[in-house]
Amino acid sequence: MNEIYKTKAEEIVPKLFERKVDAKRCVYFEKDEKAPFSTKVVDVPEIKEVFQKGDSITLDFGEHLVGKLSFKMESVQGHIGEPIRLKFRFGEIPMELTRDFSTYDGWISGSWLQEEIVNVDFPETVTLPRRYCFRFMEVTVLETVQKVKLSDFSVMHITSADTENAEKVTIIDEELAEIDRVSAKTLEDCMQSVYEDGPKRDRRLWSGDFRLQALSDYYLFKNYDLVKRCLYLFAACLTDGKYLPSCLYYYPELWSKKGSGFMDYAFLYTVAVGEYFEHSKDVNTVRELFPIVKSQMDIAIDNLSDGILTIPEDSNGFIDWADDLKKILPTHGVFLYALEKNIELAKSLGETDVADKWEETLTKSRKAAYELFFDGEKFVNPKEDNQYAVHNQVWMILGGVTGEDEGRMVLGKAFLSKDSIKPVSPYMHHYVLEAMIKLNMFDEAKAYIKDYWGGMIKLGADTFWEVYVPGDLAVSPYRDALINSFCHAWSCTPSYFIRKYLNK
Amino acid sequence: MNEIYKTKAEEIVPKLFERKVDAKRCVYFEKDEKAPFSTKVVDVPEIKEVFQKGDSITLDFGEHLVGKLSFKMESVQGHIGEPIRLKFRFGEIPMELTRDFSTYDGWISGSWLQEEIVNVDFPETVTLPRRYCFRFMEVTVLETVQKVKLSDFSVMHITSADTENAEKVTIIDEELAEIDRVSAKTLEDCMQSVYEDGPKRDRRLWSGDFRLQALSDYYLFKNYDLVKRCLYLFAACLTDGKYLPSCLYYYPELWSKKGSGFMDYAFLYTVAVGEYFEHSKDVNTVRELFPIVKSQMDIAIDNLSDGILTIPEDSNGFIDWADDLKKILPTHGVFLYALEKNIELAKSLGETDVADKWEETLTKSRKAAYELFFDGEKFVNPKEDNQYAVHNQVWMILGGVTGEDEGRMVLGKAFLSKDSIKPVSPYMHHYVLEAMIKLNMFDEAKAYIKDYWGGMIKLGADTFWEVYVPGDLAVSPYRDALINSFCHAWSCTPSYFIRKYLNK
Repeated sequence: MNEIYKTKAEEIVPKLFERKVDAKRCVYFEKDEKAPFSTKVVDVPEIKEVFQKGDSITLDFGEHLVGKLSFKMESVQGHIGEPIRLKFRFGEIPMELTRDFSTYDGWISGSWLQEEIVNVDFPETVTLPRRYCFRFMEVTVLETVQKVKLSDFSVMHITSADTENAEKVTIIDEELAEIDRVSAKTLEDCMQSVYEDGPKRDRRLWSGDFRLQALSDYYLFKNYDLVKRCLYLFAACLTDGKYLPSCLYYYPELWSKKGSGFMDYAFLYTVAVGEYFEHSKDVNTVRELFPIVKSQMDIAIDNLSDGILTIPEDSNGFIDWADDLKKILPTHGVFLYALEKNIELAKSLGETDVADKWEETLTKSRKAAYELFFDGEKFVNPKEDNQYAVHNQVWMILGGVTGEDEGRMVLGKAFLSKDSIKPVSPYMHHYVLEAMIKLNMFDEAKAYIKDYWGGMIKLGADTFWEVYVPGDLAVSPYRDALINSFCHAWSCTPSYFIRKYLNK
Repeated sequence: MNEIYKTKAEEIVPKLFERKVDAKRCVYFEKDEKAPFSTKVVDVPEIKEVFQKGDSITLDFGEHLVGKLSFKMESVQGHIGEPIRLKFRFGEIPMELTRDFSTYDGWISGSWLQEEIVNVDFPETVTLPRRYCFRFMEVTVLETVQKVKLSDFSVMHITSADTENAEKVTIIDEELAEIDRVSAKTLEDCMQSVYEDGPKRDRRLWSGDFRLQALSDYYLFKNYDLVKRCLYLFAACLTDGKYLPSCLYYYPELWSKKGSGFMDYAFLYTVAVGEYFEHSKDVNTVRELFPIVKSQMDIAIDNLSDGILTIPEDSNGFIDWADDLKKILPTHGVFLYALEKNIELAKSLGETDVADKWEETLTKSRKAAYELFFDGEKFVNPKEDNQYAVHNQVWMILGGVTGEDEGRMVLGKAFLSKDSIKPVSPYMHHYVLEAMIKLNMFDEAKAYIKDYWGGMIKLGADTFWEVYVPGDLAVSPYRDALINSFCHAWSCTPSYFIRKYLNK
């Protein structure tokens, strides 16, 4: 643990902005095969306030929220002379509350399912001590022998995004404006004391997600200090001679796995350093972090084999949730993409020797990639069973291995092919868009955003999801979509694309 | 609500003394028909600290405690990156933890059963926010996908009894010494910001229990201010022209039912005022409360019918938990008992006119009782189906209706008779003892205490119980003994008898 970096990160714990949000309406859920997740939300005209044992209601807070729940418990007749046992369940989307949590079948802990059984000793205003992440809340009275009144349900929503002072930008295209709004809300709700990947679950800082959040944040809330804090947190957790950890915990103390994380995430961390510099002009911080950037590039360069990236035993690429995806080819693309950006960063910092050396490698490794991977129609790796994937084409484009025309060709073909692996996560869809922008496919990028992210909105999304495969809502990297995050950092980049490139 | 009395009570919220108590050993419970409640406690040599999903342990804290639980949660490997869902169950006695709480069949709220499901977000030292009342605690790990370490279980025990500065009295008889120790512990654990009737459950202030607690406290911890506070709390809740409420709540604000409570409890409140004066010599407070005392006597006097108490529609006597017990006769006895003591109080305060008037009533009402109720062998009320009960004899003795010899005769016969209703609650057993003391039956009183309260100790009691019927541990006023209180205020008076009369 590098204590200097750690201290610097701890010096800039962000201010959290609070906003009280009341429950908006009472609803129930109806099974309807035509509705998203087969769940239709039906309005209940009146909000029930008087409860007996076994009674239950579901409240809709009107928007996705992150924060603590408060409510008022009162007696109906006389005094409440006993604890009242209540069960709360929280859902980011209706589907979560239509499922019996005991049927959860995923491989990550069921404790992420937002359920709380609370004994309230006295009739008063109660604030539950934990943070929840939800739009819908169900409360059931498990134990009482009398009637009780439950009312004034509200959430103190928290975020480190200064939404009030955010620059107002008019998005001309109405559909894009709505997508931009949902993107901004997704980022807002993930902005806490770090850029969390998804506030419902992990509350961790993941470098791959973080780079995308920072990118959108430069065009939304401009919390440069939060970017800086996260850059330092990763820097503090570096093991010498290893790729940066991909994920870290910051409470109750900073912690990450020793050793290497995902190589592509490590490369994208270095890209985030350069982008932070580009937007903040904070040369001191970036100069301090440049040795980290350099270390990541150098480990990769020192381990090239005939110009191609090798994956060390303790690491791998992430690239996407797609099943059985081979990682060498696309991760090599990420390396080239980062190297090109870091050459610019080195030059800006006057590190010309470094820049020159990297230029040489970049040229050599691009050439090696083209020769090894391009079969005349597409990029595939003979050493990886010639697996055909959209991912390969995207990262060869972003890695600068191919020019504009060839890029459009390989990308188009890969999407059209029935045999190619397609992107699964919004994270990977982001890089498809980056590739389109690089290829000057602005109209296609607009359409792609409307189709993919707009598709989530059509399904009722208040915030963008961790996983979205059009036509198959049951997809989950955890075997059960119940535990998927429905407000996920890596899905927030439409705002970046729209505001930087597409609002014309 | 009388705001002046209320303010006076609020000015003397007692200091709570804290003492940290660690778990002493790990145990399990074995079914054993010969053991109390068919439950044998078996020692487990080592305290398990590393838990997987589904693991559970039971800890014995070595003594009955009231307070908040703390423990430490740590990772076993790496970091805990998810909430850990834990279930806690607390028991005053082993039986509570051998029962599945979902089988509870009583008529008061199941929320009194001490169970808590807690999601712990981070590896740190955790203090649960609610107060529990227990000696045994079971913890089960409901949800985790990794191993977690749970250790350092401790309780911050709280009481308003200043145990450290309590006068040390040597009790000569070893059996009585042990009974005195358990009585004192019972009172200690019920002494919180009021004299609670039972800290596991209601946390209310009941006047009938309170008078007995105060009585023992004068010989144990001498917290006169706590007595004074409780006297004022009841005074604040009086409805004009009504008997005092029997029970009140003091949090989040002072509350009691409007109207009359149990008449006998109201009479015993007046007795508590006089006893407070006797021990504290606090004439100002007692002078201030005397109008309340007078009001309670006068309501009764104004409603005598041929010298005998009448029970108004909105009231009744409590006397005991015994099923179908008729209340007029014994409640009349409580009235006479109180009236006699209040005559002395009136005299001490110089209220001679009042005292004189009351003397007249006392004589008349004793005579009326003797004439109406005494059939030559026992006290029974022809207007109450001549129901035969120990209770009747006890209260006629305490009410001064009968002299020593006749008293011994009716009491002895009632206990020996197969047809008489016997005392159920330790509360009623207290008044049996008071009657014995009045009749100078000191040896019998000693034996009675050893037999009844000593019987609970033989069954493993750390504190005395709310209900104890020798030979039938399933008795419960709530239909299910699972919810009985096993540390109950009204059972703490052996210390009073032993220290005042029997330590010879």
